[in-house]
Amino acid sequence: MTTAAETIAGWATTVTLDDVPADVLEHAKLHALDVLGCGLAADAEGVAQEGRATMAELGGEPQATVIGSGGRLPAANAAFANAMLCHGLDFDDTHSDSVSHVSAVVTPAALAAGEAVGATGRDVLAAIVVGNEVTCRVGMAAPGAFHKRGFHPTAICGIFGGVAAVSRLFGADAGATTRALGIAGSFAGGLFAYLEDGTPTKPMHPAWAAHGATIASRLAAHGAIGPRSVLEGKFGLYHAFLDAGEGEVDIAGQVADLGRRWETPRIAYKPYPVCHFMHGSLGAAAEALAGRTLAPGEIAEVVVRVPAAGVSLVLEPAPQKVAPRSEYEGKFSLQYSVASMLVRGHVAVSDFTDEAIADPAVLEVAAKVRYETREYPTYPQAFPGATTVRLVDGTLLEADFPHQAGAPENPLSADEVRAKFRENASLALDEPELVALEEAILSLERNDDLTAALAPLVAREGIAV
Amino acid sequence: MTTAAETIAGWATTVTLDDVPADVLEHAKLHALDVLGCGLAADAEGVAQEGRATMAELGGEPQATVIGSGGRLPAANAAFANAMLCHGLDFDDTHSDSVSHVSAVVTPAALAAGEAVGATGRDVLAAIVVGNEVTCRVGMAAPGAFHKRGFHPTAICGIFGGVAAVSRLFGADAGATTRALGIAGSFAGGLFAYLEDGTPTKPMHPAWAAHGATIASRLAAHGAIGPRSVLEGKFGLYHAFLDAGEGEVDIAGQVADLGRRWETPRIAYKPYPVCHFMHGSLGAAAEALAGRTLAPGEIAEVVVRVPAAGVSLVLEPAPQKVAPRSEYEGKFSLQYSVASMLVRGHVAVSDFTDEAIADPAVLEVAAKVRYETREYPTYPQAFPGATTVRLVDGTLLEADFPHQAGAPENPLSADEVRAKFRENASLALDEPELVALEEAILSLERNDDLTAALAPLVAREGIAV
Repeated sequence: MTTAAETIAGWATTVTLDDVPADVLEHAKLHALDVLGCGLAADAEGVAQEGRATMAELGGEPQATVIGSGGRLPAANAAFANAMLCHGLDFDDTHSDSVSHVSAVVTPAALAAGEAVGATGRDVLAAIVVGNEVTCRVGMAAPGAFHKRGFHPTAICGIFGGVAAVSRLFGADAGATTRALGIAGSFAGGLFAYLEDGTPTKPMHPAWAAHGATIASRLAAHGAIGPRSVLEGKFGLYHAFLDAGEGEVDIAGQVADLGRRWETPRIAYKPYPVCHFMHGSLGAAAEALAGRTLAPGEIAEVVVRVPAAGVSLVLEPAPQKVAPRSEYEGKFSLQYSVASMLVRGHVAVSDFTDEAIADPAVLEVAAKVRYETREYPTYPQAFPGATTVRLVDGTLLEADFPHQAGAPENPLSADEVRAKFRENASLALDEPELVALEEAILSLERNDDLTAALAPLVAREGIAV
Repeated sequence: MTTAAETIAGWATTVTLDDVPADVLEHAKLHALDVLGCGLAADAEGVAQEGRATMAELGGEPQATVIGSGGRLPAANAAFANAMLCHGLDFDDTHSDSVSHVSAVVTPAALAAGEAVGATGRDVLAAIVVGNEVTCRVGMAAPGAFHKRGFHPTAICGIFGGVAAVSRLFGADAGATTRALGIAGSFAGGLFAYLEDGTPTKPMHPAWAAHGATIASRLAAHGAIGPRSVLEGKFGLYHAFLDAGEGEVDIAGQVADLGRRWETPRIAYKPYPVCHFMHGSLGAAAEALAGRTLAPGEIAEVVVRVPAAGVSLVLEPAPQKVAPRSEYEGKFSLQYSVASMLVRGHVAVSDFTDEAIADPAVLEVAAKVRYETREYPTYPQAFPGATTVRLVDGTLLEADFPHQAGAPENPLSADEVRAKFRENASLALDEPELVALEEAILSLERNDDLTAALAPLVAREGIAV
C-alpha cells in the first residue's frame, strides 16, 4: 500500500508549474513576498537575530543569502537564520485549518536550497507551492490537535512541507524524498512551553523546521533512510504526537487530492503586526473609516465587539491595556491598536516603537475604547470582531467582520499585500532595493538568477549588526 | 519557585571535578572511551556515515574533530557526525531507568564543544559527567513513558544533557544555561516510526540531539530565550510529549539530589553488538565457558532460557534465526550469537560480517540451540537469561544471569571495557593510535590539548570514504 509520505513524494517530485492554476501561483508569490517583508521588518527592529548570529559563527559554504547580512551561508543555515527573522514579529501568514505559519518555514528553506543549487525561478516557485501544499495537508489531517497537546504545528507539520520543497530542488527522486520525509519525522519538534512565561522562543520553531528539512533532505541524498510510514504508521507523527489511534487521522484523504485541491490561496495574510484575535475589530475599524483618519477631539466613544474568549487576551486588564508599556503589550492591546487605526490610519510595525506607544493623541483615543462581547458562529475558526465609532457630532462609523481582515473569506488584495510588504521592507531598505525585490519575487518564474534577485535582502547590511 | 531547568543550570554551571566521586569520574571516562570505540567500529563497518557526509558538505569553521575524517567541522556539526557514528551499531551504552543511550549524545557534543573553545581536559570531563547526569534524570522522571508513546528518550531527554554539558564549556552562566534548556525543549524530537519497517533511522536521533544541544546553547549565548518551565510547565516536555498531568512526573525530585546521587556508574555497557535482550544468555554462556572455547563436535545440545517476551524477538522463527542471512538478522539471532560465543569465545562486530555469518562451525552449533522460557523477577528492568551447554561427554556447563552482562548489577570491569574498546577500535585503527586514544581518554583530566588527544580518531582517514 502506498503511504502518505510516498504519495506526497510522488506528487512533489513530478508536479510542474504548468499544472498549477494561475491564482495559486499568484498567491504563492505574494506569500513569499509577504514573508520576506516580515523578515526585513524584524531585522530592522532588531528582533529574532540570534539565529543569524548563531549560524554566522559556524561559517561554511557561501550557498545562500541571509537577510541583513553580506555573509552567505550554507543553505540549511541560511534557512534557519531567515526563517527565524521571518517569524520574528509574528506578522507572517497563517493557514487556519492547519493552524500553521506556512511560509515562514517553506519560503526560506526553498529560497536557500534553490540558491545553493542554482535553480531556475520556475523550479523555486514550484518548490514553494509544493511546500505550502504539503504543510497544509499534514496539519489539516488533525486540525487544532497539535495545539491542544502543546505542540506547534508550524514547526512539526512545516518540516514535512520544507522537505518536500527542498528535496525537489536538490533533485531528489520520489524514493529519496520519501526517505527524507521519514527522517523529518524524527527531527520534528516545537513546544508551546514558552506561553507560560511569554519568552520569545516561537521564532526558533520555523527556523528549526527549515533547518531540519534541509538537513533531512541532504541526509537522504547521501543515502540515509527514514520510514515510509512516518505519518500514518505506528509511532508515526499522529500516533506519537497526538496519541491518535488507527484511522483517527485521515492523512491519506488529505494527500489524495494533491494537485487538484489547492490550499495556498487559503493561507491568510496578517494585515496587522498584532495578535490575530484583534484582526476582526481592526479590519472593521479600517472599513468604518473608509480612508479617513480622525483627530482625538472628534471621537466621543469607540466600542469594539469580540468573542468572550478574547477579552482576557487583548482587552483586560483594561487599565494596562489602554496604556501599553512595551511593544509586546501594545500588540496585545486592542484599545491601543484600534486607536492607532483611527488616529493614524494604520497599524504597522512602526506603530509599536517606544515612541509610538507614548503618542498622546493615540493614548487619548485608547482611553475612549470600551468593549462588548458578541457571539459569532465563525469563531473559533475565524477571528471575528466589530467596531463602532461615535463621533462628537453624533455620526456613527461602524463595521462588523465575521471573518478577520486577511482571512480567505475576507482576503487582502494583491495591492494590499504589496502595500504591506512596502511598509515592512521600507523599515530596512531604500526605495530602489525595495522595488527591485518586489519585482523579482513577483516575477519569480522568469527570474533565473536567484542570488541577484535576493540581493536587496542584504542591502541594509552596512547598517545591521 | 525554582524550576527544574534552573536547578539543573545552577548545578551544571558550578559543580567542579573535585565534587565528583572517583568512581563516577572513572566510569565517565570509560563510557567516553566505550562510545568512541563504537563510533570507530561503525566507521570501519561503513555504517551511519551519512551524517558525516551531510555535515562535511556544509563546511565551516574547523572547530572539532570528526571520526574518520581529516576535515574538522564546526562543533555543532562535528557533534552530529560523531553522534550518528557512535550510535550506528547500537553497541553503545544504555541507562536502563531512563532507557537512554546517554553517551552517544553527551560525549560527542561535549568533546566537540570542548575542542571548539580549547577547554581543559578537566572541563571536558566535568561537562561529560554533567551531561550524563542530566540526561538520566530527565529520563528517570518518566521511566518507559516516552517509549510507550513512540518517542525516543535518547534524543528527547539527551538534548537536555547535551545542553547542560556544552553550555558549561561555552562559559554560559546559570541564566544562559536555563535559556538554552528552554530552547532545547522546542528542538527535542525523535520518533520510533522506523520500527515499522526496520529502517536504520535511529542513529540520526542522538545526532540531531547533539546538534540541537549545541545550537540551542549558542542561540542562548547570543541572547535567545527559552522558557524556564520547559520541563514541568504547561506544554512543557512531560505535558506535551507524555500528556502528563500536573504533579504526575516528579522532575523536581529527580534534579533535587544532583551532585549527591550519581547515575553515571549505573549506565550499562553493552558487551555484545547485538539486541540487548540476548545479553543475559550470552553473558551466562561466557561465564559457563570460563575462558575456553568448544569445537562443534564437542557439543551435544545448547539450551538458552529467556523471558517469554524475548522469544519472537531473538529466537523465532527458528529456521531463520539459526542461519541468519544478514548482519542485522544475526544481531537478533540468539542461536547464532550464542554459537559464536561457544565456538569463537566472543560476540564482536567482526562476528557479523557476511563471511562470519556463513561460518559452518558456528552454524553447526547454532542448529543445536533450543530454548525454554523462564520467568525472572528482574525482567523487564534487566534483560536476564541463562545458558546450559551439554557436551558430548556428558559434562554440563551452565550459568544464569538474572541481570544481563554489562548491567550495573553485573558490570563490566574496567579491563573488560578497555578490551571492548580495543576490539572495536582495532577495526579502524592500528595499535599505536588505538593505545594513544585509550590513554588520552582515560587520563582526560590531565589532557589539555583535546585536538591532539583526539587525533587518533582521524588516523584512518586515508582509508575511509
